[in-house]
Amino acid sequence: MITGHTKLYGIVAHPIAHVKTPEEMNNHFASLGYDGVLVPFHVQPENLATFIDTLRRIENFGGLIVTVPHKTAILELCDSVVGDAAAIGAVNTIRRDPDGSLVGAMLDGKGFVRGLEASAIDVRGMKSCLLGAGGAASAIAFALAEAGVNSLRIVNRSAGKAEDLARRVAEHYPNVKASAGAPETASQDLVVNATSLGLRDGDPLPLEDTAFHSGQIVAEAIMEPEVTPILATAREKGALIHFGRPMLRQQIRLMAEHMGVTPAKA
Amino acid sequence: MITGHTKLYGIVAHPIAHVKTPEEMNNHFASLGYDGVLVPFHVQPENLATFIDTLRRIENFGGLIVTVPHKTAILELCDSVVGDAAAIGAVNTIRRDPDGSLVGAMLDGKGFVRGLEASAIDVRGMKSCLLGAGGAASAIAFALAEAGVNSLRIVNRSAGKAEDLARRVAEHYPNVKASAGAPETASQDLVVNATSLGLRDGDPLPLEDTAFHSGQIVAEAIMEPEVTPILATAREKGALIHFGRPMLRQQIRLMAEHMGVTPAKA
Repeated sequence: MITGHTKLYGIVAHPIAHVKTPEEMNNHFASLGYDGVLVPFHVQPENLATFIDTLRRIENFGGLIVTVPHKTAILELCDSVVGDAAAIGAVNTIRRDPDGSLVGAMLDGKGFVRGLEASAIDVRGMKSCLLGAGGAASAIAFALAEAGVNSLRIVNRSAGKAEDLARRVAEHYPNVKASAGAPETASQDLVVNATSLGLRDGDPLPLEDTAFHSGQIVAEAIMEPEVTPILATAREKGALIHFGRPMLRQQIRLMAEHMGVTPAKA
Repeated sequence: MITGHTKLYGIVAHPIAHVKTPEEMNNHFASLGYDGVLVPFHVQPENLATFIDTLRRIENFGGLIVTVPHKTAILELCDSVVGDAAAIGAVNTIRRDPDGSLVGAMLDGKGFVRGLEASAIDVRGMKSCLLGAGGAASAIAFALAEAGVNSLRIVNRSAGKAEDLARRVAEHYPNVKASAGAPETASQDLVVNATSLGLRDGDPLPLEDTAFHSGQIVAEAIMEPEVTPILATAREKGALIHFGRPMLRQQIRLMAEHMGVTPAKA
């Protein structure tokens, strides 16, 4: 039950009606016995800076989840950021410290890697291939590099974006062989779809080279539908497939942790 | 359950932990089957203007309950006010219209009068006496005048405040005989305590003239304790007593109505 003691959290988006984070995070808070509530804030891009500044002045505000279209713009509105948020160029979670300062983090990619870990998949040392070079892909690229993949091949229709992302990853993780180019599917331990291809019925595959084989993992960042064309193809060819859905639960946990809501503290 | 569709409402206060409105209003929303949630916002006085301005920019924000210490300062931050809010000099409820404009109302006094009505007490034509001339008393004075009392005697330790309130009421309700002075208890149909005397254990009575008698109503604006010294004394002398508590339920309904949440619309 919401009382005067309840700590306040939000999700900011435009539009807002489709977001699922309130249900997910409030369930998570409840499972921890934590007296917090997360509510939706529908804010247009031109009002984002004013909105964020006001959060500093709401004493019982604990943190904010940030989603489309605000993830990039919000980066410079934070007082500080942790992890690879600045390198990725986006923030999806903000903690409000008691002094009002706002600490941003980008946890989309980490949630993906934790989802793999929850399925007992350890990416350390793997030769990996990432399809896509947009926002979601950037976050996953940095998270795979942080988790210690051996190599990361970035595949994107616009080669320039793939090269730029590979360069940024190599700069921050010099031990990871990051490059842009063709997927070289057969040679990879892990192939990750971080494009939006597969979201809509009738979408083509996000890659042409479908030399999938057993002993290989093919993972999806799309949550719905569960079985996208790339997963269907990979499964047919004997690869182990990994759905997009486990990412969400891990992201909720990571976001709560960043906002200071941990099982120990709750 | 809170989803991306849920309309957002708030209560602003400093401090915040003691407020009971979240439980009360969320129960009311639930009883109407209305998809809204009211959450606490802890905001310091110096941050109130910024906070209020931001509410205009939160598209799914429906309205705000305002309490101590913000009721006076918030008046001039509204885009418009309805009823006697300007004359009372305070606002306790704001509706956010879809264009972002903020419409204030002062419903504390109306809630008190509706509480009497819910107990089948019609104040029209009554000779009435109001103890106190502060914020709560001002709201009740205007609501009693609006409801059509015959006369209103305002009793206050600081005579200047009582005279000022009587003058303001007379100005807006020329048909009501509003005056400041002694309670003349025996001659009143209705005596209302709107001071804080009775809130704390050992408080003296809020008046010296205790010539209460049967056929008379003595009402309390204090909700806790239920039986204050003035009610105990009045009951002993045969007067009908009216507790402060019914006011709250009526206020919740009135606040929801002003914010556009009515049984018909929900």
